Amino acid sequence: MATTVTAPSPSVPSTPLLKDELDIVIPTIRNLDFLEMWRPFFQPYHLIIVQDGDPTKTIKVPEGFDYELYNRNDINRILGPKASCISFKDSACRCFGYMVSKKKYVFTIDDDCFVAKDPSGKDINALEQHIKNLLSPSTPFFFNTLYDPYREGADFVRGYPFSLREGAKTAVSHGLWLNIPDYDAPTQMVKPRERNTRYVDAVMTVPKGTLFPMCGMNLAFDRELIGPAMYFGLMGDGQPIGRYDDMWAGWCMKVICDHLSLGVKTGLPYLWHSKASNPFVNLKKEYKGIFWQEDIIPFFQNATIPKECDTVQKCYIALSEQVREKLGKIDPYFIKLADAMVTWIEAWDELNPSTAAVENGKA
Amino acid sequence: MATTVTAPSPSVPSTPLLKDELDIVIPTIRNLDFLEMWRPFFQPYHLIIVQDGDPTKTIKVPEGFDYELYNRNDINRILGPKASCISFKDSACRCFGYMVSKKKYVFTIDDDCFVAKDPSGKDINALEQHIKNLLSPSTPFFFNTLYDPYREGADFVRGYPFSLREGAKTAVSHGLWLNIPDYDAPTQMVKPRERNTRYVDAVMTVPKGTLFPMCGMNLAFDRELIGPAMYFGLMGDGQPIGRYDDMWAGWCMKVICDHLSLGVKTGLPYLWHSKASNPFVNLKKEYKGIFWQEDIIPFFQNATIPKECDTVQKCYIALSEQVREKLGKIDPYFIKLADAMVTWIEAWDELNPSTAAVENGKA
Repeated sequence: MATTVTAPSPSVPSTPLLKDELDIVIPTIRNLDFLEMWRPFFQPYHLIIVQDGDPTKTIKVPEGFDYELYNRNDINRILGPKASCISFKDSACRCFGYMVSKKKYVFTIDDDCFVAKDPSGKDINALEQHIKNLLSPSTPFFFNTLYDPYREGADFVRGYPFSLREGAKTAVSHGLWLNIPDYDAPTQMVKPRERNTRYVDAVMTVPKGTLFPMCGMNLAFDRELIGPAMYFGLMGDGQPIGRYDDMWAGWCMKVICDHLSLGVKTGLPYLWHSKASNPFVNLKKEYKGIFWQEDIIPFFQNATIPKECDTVQKCYIALSEQVREKLGKIDPYFIKLADAMVTWIEAWDELNPSTAAVENGKA
Repeated sequence: MATTVTAPSPSVPSTPLLKDELDIVIPTIRNLDFLEMWRPFFQPYHLIIVQDGDPTKTIKVPEGFDYELYNRNDINRILGPKASCISFKDSACRCFGYMVSKKKYVFTIDDDCFVAKDPSGKDINALEQHIKNLLSPSTPFFFNTLYDPYREGADFVRGYPFSLREGAKTAVSHGLWLNIPDYDAPTQMVKPRERNTRYVDAVMTVPKGTLFPMCGMNLAFDRELIGPAMYFGLMGDGQPIGRYDDMWAGWCMKVICDHLSLGVKTGLPYLWHSKASNPFVNLKKEYKGIFWQEDIIPFFQNATIPKECDTVQKCYIALSEQVREKLGKIDPYFIKLADAMVTWIEAWDELNPSTAAVENGKA
């Protein structure tokens, strides 16, 4: 019988998808009031909060959320000397949350990101869209002009080889941002008033062999498929660089996904990015990266992983050796980073013994 | 002084872009009543109509359009024995129009395609969007997650190398279709009622090294940059295959664009594709192609053009040699096609002597 009782929004599924198989990882230095807006979508899930900066500070989490919180003291206690691979005073610390998660999927979000609205005015359930992206295949081997062929109302177009229509497993879902776009400091400075208002109703696979700038603000992935490649590098305190944590992870991850025939999607869902970070502070963090990326990107474009590497860990160790050898020539920082990449894998395998490949070797 | 006289729609620019530098090429077998709907957008431009089928039939063109029309007799007269490279009883014949055009740009459209509306209900000026796509650079070397960085309100995101932000020249703009999607016969049969209703407000570059299924229904290109690669092959009458004309051109063109560092865009503009072709007829035309494409696509994915090929013609001849050698093993049709590719280039150079490279050699 129909009633006039307010029904839940259709974007809130009655049984949340993957409720017991997904963790939400949030790096933060402040009280998590932003969660209030996400309550209808996030409350059923478990949160892993990685507290950056001063560990004596208390982070307030709104009531009713199920969470675990790690500060720097926790990280040091759990990882011991291996904690050196986890960045401090940089949102790169979030990858510690990926490591301690026990779930198959991870969604990570920044605490200045809010619920966006689609063009019809409806609140976007970003997490639900990420899950749909991850649960449907990708198409890395050939481009489909009507975008994601697995979405309702779409398919493979004429000329798409039938042998490729099964697609590949999706390892990563990269979402976008309305309002404040994810620009570097120089672009922020040149276009201080630019806002992203274009809602592009598409999900697409980043083709095999193509690198892209992966942003960590609105990101989901399959930990079992690609988790150990999601290392956000050495950034922030004591390091010569910041704001390249997600980029670094994205480049490493993409090369490994290409090697292992896994798919990476970008596009929907959007969230609302509320606040531009300070472009002057950003420039200071970024400027070495702006130079280095001119060499880093060709490096990753040409990186090939030996055929015998059949696990993410093996691929990642092989990549770390190439980083040491080739990027180490640019700056000693990359030798330190290559060491940290190895430490990260050791720490990952220690905390995730069931998925550690027995013969994971170091360089 | 403001008046109440109906102003032209804002999507019709008062001075049509590239008015004297662009031809519209239309292959047809019927009266061109469909042009009435396009009148506000197409009337300022010159049309090249390629009449397929019975040359004694008279094709009616609505009044007020500036056009030249070629039927089979004209093609035979102009090309002599080289007319063998132009398909008959297949819309592949349209490429004859590319050859006889004297303009820098070509837009080609099917005669069952009408003006689509954008989500606000406004008529889409497809030609204007194609011109914008062609006149702004492409980004084939690195993926930008906010799509075309040269569109208003968009830019390159954080992590995009600054050395690549000048982009590459755009050679091809591939538009899409609302209503009837461009599906192959098997998909048409399985989903007879599927309509494309999703308006994706994006233009993007197909990355270097990535092939895509290029559809000839709604396509624009820079003749000077890529014209000689836009050969639509041997299809239709007397040939074992149909409906792969645009696909063939797209694969050849993309490999050559990648070699010459030219860009290819896909996405906007949409047009309204009114009528699904008969899937049973289509299956008959396509079925060999459905098998062959499983080999053709890996062939093009692995094709490399010798470094010394620095014109489209030289690249195309080099590609024809590889087609003969490698695809010729699949079916003798490809040997005939390789011959026709050479003939096409000879005919192109004959009709376009100023752009013909002096030393264009044959195999």
